[in-house]
Amino acid sequence: MTDQIDLRSAALALEELRARRPLVQNITNYVVMTISANALLALGASPAMVHAVEETEDFTAISNSLVVNIGTLSPRWVEAMKLSARKANELGRNWVLDPVGCGATPYRTAVAVELAEIGPAVIRGNASEILSLAGAAASGKGVDSTASSDDAVAAAAALAGRTGAVVAVTGETDYVTDGRLLIAVEGGSPLMPLSTGMGCALSATVAAFAAIRPPLAATAFALAVYGAAGAEAASRCPGPGHLPAELCDALYIMNEAMLRARSSISVREFA
Amino acid sequence: MTDQIDLRSAALALEELRARRPLVQNITNYVVMTISANALLALGASPAMVHAVEETEDFTAISNSLVVNIGTLSPRWVEAMKLSARKANELGRNWVLDPVGCGATPYRTAVAVELAEIGPAVIRGNASEILSLAGAAASGKGVDSTASSDDAVAAAAALAGRTGAVVAVTGETDYVTDGRLLIAVEGGSPLMPLSTGMGCALSATVAAFAAIRPPLAATAFALAVYGAAGAEAASRCPGPGHLPAELCDALYIMNEAMLRARSSISVREFA
Amino acid sequence: MTDQIDLRSAALALEELRARRPLVQNITNYVVMTISANALLALGASPAMVHAVEETEDFTAISNSLVVNIGTLSPRWVEAMKLSARKANELGRNWVLDPVGCGATPYRTAVAVELAEIGPAVIRGNASEILSLAGAAASGKGVDSTASSDDAVAAAAALAGRTGAVVAVTGETDYVTDGRLLIAVEGGSPLMPLSTGMGCALSATVAAFAAIRPPLAATAFALAVYGAAGAEAASRCPGPGHLPAELCDALYIMNEAMLRARSSISVREFA
Repeated sequence: MTDQIDLRSAALALEELRARRPLVQNITNYVVMTISANALLALGASPAMVHAVEETEDFTAISNSLVVNIGTLSPRWVEAMKLSARKANELGRNWVLDPVGCGATPYRTAVAVELAEIGPAVIRGNASEILSLAGAAASGKGVDSTASSDDAVAAAAALAGRTGAVVAVTGETDYVTDGRLLIAVEGGSPLMPLSTGMGCALSATVAAFAAIRPPLAATAFALAVYGAAGAEAASRCPGPGHLPAELCDALYIMNEAMLRARSSISVREFA
Repeated sequence: MTDQIDLRSAALALEELRARRPLVQNITNYVVMTISANALLALGASPAMVHAVEETEDFTAISNSLVVNIGTLSPRWVEAMKLSARKANELGRNWVLDPVGCGATPYRTAVAVELAEIGPAVIRGNASEILSLAGAAASGKGVDSTASSDDAVAAAAALAGRTGAVVAVTGETDYVTDGRLLIAVEGGSPLMPLSTGMGCALSATVAAFAAIRPPLAATAFALAVYGAAGAEAASRCPGPGHLPAELCDALYIMNEAMLRARSSISVREFA
Repeated sequence: MTDQIDLRSAALALEELRARRPLVQNITNYVVMTISANALLALGASPAMVHAVEETEDFTAISNSLVVNIGTLSPRWVEAMKLSARKANELGRNWVLDPVGCGATPYRTAVAVELAEIGPAVIRGNASEILSLAGAAASGKGVDSTASSDDAVAAAAALAGRTGAVVAVTGETDYVTDGRLLIAVEGGSPLMPLSTGMGCALSATVAAFAAIRPPLAATAFALAVYGAAGAEAASRCPGPGHLPAELCDALYIMNEAMLRARSSISVREFA
C-alpha cells in the first residue's frame, strides 16, 4: 500500500503487468466472455475462463487473481464461484466481485450478498448495484443503472466498512473507496454503456491489476487505464459498434502520455 | 393496431423506443448473446440475458418484453423458456419465439412446437424453420435455410392461424403475416447470412419493438429498421468481418431518411 | 490421401469447400463460439453450435464434420462430446479435438486423454497442450502456451503414433504430422495470440477442411489458409482489436495469390 495512487504509478504498474503477464481466472457471464478475454489480452494479462466445479479450485490455485461476475448466474456456477472465492482467500490471492444486476431479482441479490460475505478484495458495480448490495434503496432497471455514481458513494463506503473490500462505483465519474480514502477517477465516454460488457471487462481489468498491486491502488490504476482507453477508443468511433475493438487497441498501446491525456485520479480523505 | 404500417410510423416508433428504453429479456443462445445485446443497446433498448430457473420469472415480471431463442437449447434452459413465456402471457407482455434450427433434430423440433403452443406474440424464423414448425416438408441444413422465404409464406399464414402469433419469415425479402395481412419488407444484404447471429439479433429487435407496439406493427417496424441498418452496414463492408460493428453503428444513427433510402414496407390483404 | 500437400492444392480445396458448404458441428467453449462461427461462415462453411445430450448425436449424423473443444468443459458437455465423437467415428466422419488448457488441471487433462482415446482424425493444440497430452513434461500457464511449437514436434509424432490421429502443433511455425510425414506451415502473426479464440477458430477451420479432405491434407490446408488470413488481417491492424473482423474478411477473399503471398507449406519425411 506504499504506492502513490496517481497516474505515474498507474503507468508503472501497467508496465509491470505487461512484464509479468498475470494469469487471471474469470468466472463470468456468457455475454461478456469474449470482450473480457480480449481486453485482458490487449492489456497484457493472460485470461482464462474456467468455472467447472470439477476444476475451478485447481485453476484458482495456479492463477494470480480471480474475477467473479454474476451476470448469467445459475446454481452450479454459483457453487464454483464460492469454491474459487474461498480458495483465493485461502491462498492470499485478490479476487474481484462484480454483482451484475444485484437488486433485479431476489435470487441475484441473495447470491451477491453471499459472495460479498466471503470477502472479495474488490467489489465493482454501477450505482444501482452498489446501492442494492449495500442494502440501501435502489431502483435498478434490469442490469443497467438508474442511479448516478455520486449517489452511491455513501453506500460504497458503508459496504467497504462492512465487508473489508475496496468498493468501486463506476459511472460518469468513477469512485473507489476503502472506507477511509475516496478516490475519484475521470475518463471513459458516454458511448461505453452502449456496448455490452464494458463494465464487466473493467472488473476483469481490476482483477489483472489486483494480481500485482494491493486492492486500493490496483482498482484506481485499473479504472484510470481503462477509462483512458475508453475515452481514446470513443474518440475514434462514430457509434458504439467498433468500441470493443478500439478499446482493445487503446489498451494495447496505452502509455503514460495517453493516460494523462485521457484520465485523471484524485485522492482525498473521506469526509 | 391503429398504427399505419409504413416507414413513417416505423421511424416514429423508433423515436419512442429510444425515449422509453424498454427492458428486453433475452433467453437466447450462447453464440449470439453479445451481438444481440449490442444491437439492442445501439437501437436504444436495455437488454438483459437472464435464464436461470431460479430468477427467470421474476425478471420477466420487470421486463417490457421477452425473446426466446432455442439456438443452444438444453433441458434446464427450456424449462426457463417455458416459465418466462407463460409469465409473459400472464402479465400481457409480448414475447417472441425464434425457433433456431427447427427441423434439424427431433429434440429441437419438439421444443419449438411446445414453445409455439404456449402462445408467442411473434414467431420469427428463416424459411426452413417456419416450414418445419408449420409441419410442412422442409429440408433445412443445420441452422441455415435451404428454402427461400417466398416458399414459406403459405406455411407462415397457416402457422399464424394455428397459434395466433404474428409470423415472420426472413430471407431475401422478409414476410410478416397475422394470417389476414401479408407485409413484405425489403432491406438487408447478402452479406448478413455470413455473419453469425444476424437473424437472432433481429428477433431481439422485434422483441424491443413489441415492448411498445402491437405484434404485427412491431414486427414490420423491426424488420424495416433492421433491414435498413443491415443494408447501410453492408455498404461500408468489403466482407462480413465488420458487419456486426457496422450494423450497431447503423442502428445507432438510424432515422427516417435512412429508413426510406434502405428499406421498404408494403402491405396487402392475404389472397 | 492422393492430394499433393501444397498451396495449389490448398487453394483448390478451398474452392471446393465454398462450393460444397460443409455443415460443421461445433461443441466448443463459450468464449470462442462467435469467432468460430464467423470464421467458418467467412470461409464458406456452415457452422452449428450444438451440444445438448438430447440432440448431439442426431446433429452429428447430419453434419459433415465435428470439432470438439474443451475450453469451458463441464460434465454434461463432456458427455455430449463423447457421444458425438463416437457417432462421428461410427459414421466415418472426421472430427477434430482441441484440448484447450490440457495440463492446467487434472480434470482437464483427464478429459483430454479420454477424448483422444476415442480416436479423433486430428488433434490441434499449442505446444504446452500437445506436450501435456502426449504425457511429456509441460509447463503450461493457464490456457496459453509457454513452450514453443518446435519443442513439441517429437511429442506430436508420439501422440500421432499412439492415437492414430494427425497432430498439429501451432505456434510461430505450425507443424503437422501423422507420425510419418512432418509438414511445416508458415503464416500468421504475433498479434494472433492477443485475440481470444484464434486457435479455437483454427481448429474449427481444420474441421471444415476435414469434411472434404483426408485428415493430413485437410489440416495442412486449413493451417495455410488460416495462417495466410491471419497474416493478411494483421497487416491491416495496428493492434489486436480488429483482428477477428479482419481475419473473417481475409478468409472471405482468400485465393491462391494471397495464399502464396502470406503462407507456405513444406513437407518432409520424419527423421
